[in-house]
Amino acid sequence: MHLVTVGGSDAGISAALRARELDPSAEVTVVVADAYPNFSICGIPYYVSGEVGHWRNLAHRTSADLEATGMRLRLDTFATDIDVAGHRLLLRDPDGGQSSLDYDELVVGTGALPVRPPIAGLDELGAADGVHLLHTMGDTFALTDTLDRIQPKTALIVGAGYVGLEMAEGLTARGIAVTQVEMLPEVLPTVDAELGALVRAELDRHDVQVHTRTTVTRIRRASQDEGGSETGRLQVEGTDPDAEPLSWDVDLVLVVVGVRPDTDLLVRAGAQTGARGAVAVDESMATGLPHVWAAGDCVVTYHRLLGTTYLPLGTTAHKQGRVAGENALGGTARYAGSLGTQVVKVFDLVAARTGLREHEAVTVGYRPGTSQSSPDDHKAYYPGAQPISIRVTGDLDTGRLLGAQLVGARGTETAKRVDTYAVALFHQMSVDAMAELDLSYTPPLGSPWDAVQMAAQAWVRDYQLPAQQAALRSLVVR
Amino acid sequence: MHLVTVGGSDAGISAALRARELDPSAEVTVVVADAYPNFSICGIPYYVSGEVGHWRNLAHRTSADLEATGMRLRLDTFATDIDVAGHRLLLRDPDGGQSSLDYDELVVGTGALPVRPPIAGLDELGAADGVHLLHTMGDTFALTDTLDRIQPKTALIVGAGYVGLEMAEGLTARGIAVTQVEMLPEVLPTVDAELGALVRAELDRHDVQVHTRTTVTRIRRASQDEGGSETGRLQVEGTDPDAEPLSWDVDLVLVVVGVRPDTDLLVRAGAQTGARGAVAVDESMATGLPHVWAAGDCVVTYHRLLGTTYLPLGTTAHKQGRVAGENALGGTARYAGSLGTQVVKVFDLVAARTGLREHEAVTVGYRPGTSQSSPDDHKAYYPGAQPISIRVTGDLDTGRLLGAQLVGARGTETAKRVDTYAVALFHQMSVDAMAELDLSYTPPLGSPWDAVQMAAQAWVRDYQLPAQQAALRSLVVR
Repeated sequence: MHLVTVGGSDAGISAALRARELDPSAEVTVVVADAYPNFSICGIPYYVSGEVGHWRNLAHRTSADLEATGMRLRLDTFATDIDVAGHRLLLRDPDGGQSSLDYDELVVGTGALPVRPPIAGLDELGAADGVHLLHTMGDTFALTDTLDRIQPKTALIVGAGYVGLEMAEGLTARGIAVTQVEMLPEVLPTVDAELGALVRAELDRHDVQVHTRTTVTRIRRASQDEGGSETGRLQVEGTDPDAEPLSWDVDLVLVVVGVRPDTDLLVRAGAQTGARGAVAVDESMATGLPHVWAAGDCVVTYHRLLGTTYLPLGTTAHKQGRVAGENALGGTARYAGSLGTQVVKVFDLVAARTGLREHEAVTVGYRPGTSQSSPDDHKAYYPGAQPISIRVTGDLDTGRLLGAQLVGARGTETAKRVDTYAVALFHQMSVDAMAELDLSYTPPLGSPWDAVQMAAQAWVRDYQLPAQQAALRSLVVR
Repeated sequence: MHLVTVGGSDAGISAALRARELDPSAEVTVVVADAYPNFSICGIPYYVSGEVGHWRNLAHRTSADLEATGMRLRLDTFATDIDVAGHRLLLRDPDGGQSSLDYDELVVGTGALPVRPPIAGLDELGAADGVHLLHTMGDTFALTDTLDRIQPKTALIVGAGYVGLEMAEGLTARGIAVTQVEMLPEVLPTVDAELGALVRAELDRHDVQVHTRTTVTRIRRASQDEGGSETGRLQVEGTDPDAEPLSWDVDLVLVVVGVRPDTDLLVRAGAQTGARGAVAVDESMATGLPHVWAAGDCVVTYHRLLGTTYLPLGTTAHKQGRVAGENALGGTARYAGSLGTQVVKVFDLVAARTGLREHEAVTVGYRPGTSQSSPDDHKAYYPGAQPISIRVTGDLDTGRLLGAQLVGARGTETAKRVDTYAVALFHQMSVDAMAELDLSYTPPLGSPWDAVQMAAQAWVRDYQLPAQQAALRSLVVR
């Protein structure tokens, strides 16, 4: 048995690790397009910020660690085509030559590519000009080279999603004045605007200049400064919420507006695509092509509440890769599905979500209602208590918990409180039943009803208490 | 409808609040033995330590808050007897006189009493001598009076459970040199000794002198110091692990070795008792006496894994009280059961548990196995990562998760990570299936497989991997 995985990031490595764990006699080869297998791309903002001392530390495991598990690594090797009938992967080797690799089973984890928004000038400008996208370790080195070379005083970040916000923090930490431009009405558009506004306030507190409902339309080199010498500066143009023109002069532009699935290899081999153009897979991570499995950011995501969607996340890629690796060896694993659980730290604030927001819930037939409350992270009498803003969404017809969004200060255990909701969602709990959960309490760290339960109880009071009162009356009268 | 609840702590107040919420027309009276309704007795150590500025802050709600919900409070009023047939509660009023209160439904939440261990001299000595038990607000004021009066330099704490450990921290914070004596082999005996040893090391780091396997046998006043004047000091005698005599001279002795259910009122009314002498109730919190319900530390605890046991906890009292309050009005609520989820902060360490340890699991027929691992709280490359020591216990026959114990530094979200296990336990998950949970990840706060999942995977590797490998082989051969 020779298992080949394509992709050195979460999905490909996870598949290879699981295969080696389950069958130590299996031959496993991992084809990695660059020289950085098993690097944590989620950690890139913290390397750019200077918080991670050496880029090598970003590796979940070193190449030596990986090889010690018995897998073989083919670095700087690009998979150009799959010969499905011939069970053969065609490769471009590090020296530019072509070769091939026979496989019995193939797991493809080609991941995602950064989206290039339609900004005039973006295609002509690049790292040499101080214009960057950020997705790979190669992109990272290009950016840090630029930072070292031009020592920018000002930067503009296009996009205020997870990576955009982390980079706003990271560049601010380097002493760079950051302007952040987001097309949508609020930063962190993956949470409701009521909570996004809290994140925006945190950006304000750290002097990030935020422009929402604003579109960047053009980037160009500002040719010369007043003295006539090259400044190396960039001029960025955009339109504000009233469609009035805006302009910024900055030293650096970073475009981080999300990703799209990298499906070329699989599509050319005949794989079908689904949501957002990602490769269609079933819950076994089978592509439909014989002996070809796929996982991670290049494939559609089975979501336990939404059905099939596209939701690229490292946590999902790890799980899917593990399933693919097991099944490639003949196993019967199933990917249990995503809940879209996510968390981001923005300066001293933590924002998290799991499950559905109202507009998402409506698309799959729920009748959602949302309550917002702000229970303290721990008993107010113990020093340092801080409110966590929690929005709980439930189905008004069934009372089922549909989702939760939380924003709290760092130190309020917000990141792991969202997990309580995530596990409740996994088991299809009702909002009301969350009061039954036996959660931990000590005054310095919680409350007798934990904050997640108090927020659930607020939802119940808002939407179900009258019905509970009526039900009791009818019982008593009966 | 006149609902009377006895007890101003978690169970009684929770019942009254739920009743008023569900039926705003219900008349609700709460009979409180002291002047401190709805006080957080879990917060007492933090008032003694000086971290809580005023004792009034320990109230979950003020008397005014409670009365604003429409309930009536009868403070400093002791319920002496229940006339079950007459639907009447007999009272000793604040002035010492007797009276009675008619009820339609009665919820009893008399709570627990501190255990007095068989220590010679304990019954003769009291607050005036610097010898204290600690359970009520009255006990608290007696202790703080002593602290103010004698300004102790040294204290000995009998017991190293939750309250004992919190008080070791609290007295240390006041500059008192603390000796802590525990009869059992390790401190915090509610977790396995491997983790208790970490707590003990934390005590050592803060100069608490810990003696385990040591029994205090006698306390007496040390009559005079060398100069012949009263010292006010106490002499404490004990026996060490080799049964050799030990002796300590200290200014203060605090005895905190657990609680027993306060069942006098209910037992005299004819209620049956069960585990540890607590009043027997069913999952509706009915006592069997007509129209008499009971909840909290005075009753047995339905445990989802152990069945009926006695496990007094504030979180449980809140839940049971809520069920009792609803059912007293004619509702059909059921207490879903405890998992024994608990957490304690000891200086800068957090220790938590949920579910069963091996010796408990054996008593209900499981064949438990436990793995210990130490995953980091977040990615090691991001500054400040710290290991959390996690012991996962599962059933070797079924793979079912049975329990988890965690010890981590403050700031590692250990308190809310135990909740992830607690919710998994609530839903009878297998250890292996925990890898399917979609938990949150960002490098500063977690890992792609969260620490709780890494610890679960360690258990699976220890106990199930060979079987998984064999199962795969048999599938492939087939």
